[in-house]
Amino acid sequence: MLTNSDSKLINSLVKKKFRQKYNKFTVEGVKIIDELIKSPFRIDKIYTTSAIFNSKSVEQILISENELKKISQLVQPNTALALCEIPQQKKMNLNGLVIALDDIRDPGNLGTIIRLADWFGIEQIICSYETVDIYNSKVIQATMGSFLRVQVNYVDLKEVFSTYKNPILGTFMDGKNIYKMDFPSDAILLMGNEANGISDELIPFVSHRITIPRFGKLQQTESLNVAMATGILLSEFNSAQIKKS
Amino acid sequence: MLTNSDSKLINSLVKKKFRQKYNKFTVEGVKIIDELIKSPFRIDKIYTTSAIFNSKSVEQILISENELKKISQLVQPNTALALCEIPQQKKMNLNGLVIALDDIRDPGNLGTIIRLADWFGIEQIICSYETVDIYNSKVIQATMGSFLRVQVNYVDLKEVFSTYKNPILGTFMDGKNIYKMDFPSDAILLMGNEANGISDELIPFVSHRITIPRFGKLQQTESLNVAMATGILLSEFNSAQIKKS
Repeated sequence: MLTNSDSKLINSLVKKKFRQKYNKFTVEGVKIIDELIKSPFRIDKIYTTSAIFNSKSVEQILISENELKKISQLVQPNTALALCEIPQQKKMNLNGLVIALDDIRDPGNLGTIIRLADWFGIEQIICSYETVDIYNSKVIQATMGSFLRVQVNYVDLKEVFSTYKNPILGTFMDGKNIYKMDFPSDAILLMGNEANGISDELIPFVSHRITIPRFGKLQQTESLNVAMATGILLSEFNSAQIKKS
Repeated sequence: MLTNSDSKLINSLVKKKFRQKYNKFTVEGVKIIDELIKSPFRIDKIYTTSAIFNSKSVEQILISENELKKISQLVQPNTALALCEIPQQKKMNLNGLVIALDDIRDPGNLGTIIRLADWFGIEQIICSYETVDIYNSKVIQATMGSFLRVQVNYVDLKEVFSTYKNPILGTFMDGKNIYKMDFPSDAILLMGNEANGISDELIPFVSHRITIPRFGKLQQTESLNVAMATGILLSEFNSAQIKKS
């Protein structure tokens, strides 16, 4: 059974303010909760319409479909919701290729970029403080579990960039054609805000201006979505590493 | 002013059945309607809260914000809605690289793929009859205008494939690594359904089984979304053409 106080707590977590206050976030769906149980994340409780989870250490609270609807953020709630603790931010690891996100606002974009990082073996993403919170439930769900495997740190990008020694790649309309360049193996790939691109104060730190060229004849196509651009760049980066080896 | 019959007609177009019956579809937003006016598409009327469109040949009907809300399919209506005629399906052009979509159901995915085709200079997409309708308003809006420049035909894929002479590339988990292969310049790139992949009856036509390899250590990442996979494949295809030339 779902108590009123649990329901109130969980619903408050839609807001970042309350996620920070209680240090908690939610994860929904059977598949992702199954992975969560095996991860180092601490789960407080699992609210579920069916006691299907194979874990003795986690409390499973049986609730009705209607009760699940009351606490779910999904259009179609999927069996279970886990209430979890937000872990402490780990130390950044700036080796290899790192993705830096400058003010990404759309939860779907952040979630997709985390999923892409996981796919392409990128271990570290660093985000400006203005980037949407990873513990926003829309971000968590869009990662499809990849938030468990990719480390995301919120930092002052200017500060990190000012002591970083390897290339910083940024996408611009007038950058170098990515299909005609060599990708460095240790670098930061900086992706800018959905509407405004890379912010003025970060531009001086970019050592390599790059571009995904348009091939369409009419040159009228809207720029690529930031998550799509990230996917294409990570693919080219990997392609370059494979061809080098 | 918006008449009741206009409002009723426009709202009926949410359903494919009525789009086919009246042979009409809708397009929303200033930027995309501006492009539409310059295109060969026939516009019946533009319903707008402000007479900003520079066109003498198209009837502009001034309506209120509230009236726009009544006919808009957007969460945040954007100034104008154009009522357009569905043009006759043109003859397919199977030269160069062609994208074939086998039962893509999500309007956002189809819209994104059309936008990608436009970006990468692909002129022709062929869709199975089960693929979501391009004149679905969610598809049209997700293309951000690219539906004006990419030709989309609905066909019996089996029939088209059975007489097609060039390679047909299909993505499978066990395919050839796309970073270690040569892309043909004339080919069909076949993308499968979001949940089930390429359908059984089409598999025998695939001449090249390809795969976007996972780089993540844990190999647990969910497969890439079909639109993202299409973007990465088109990028690699172009990269290969550039490196050949």
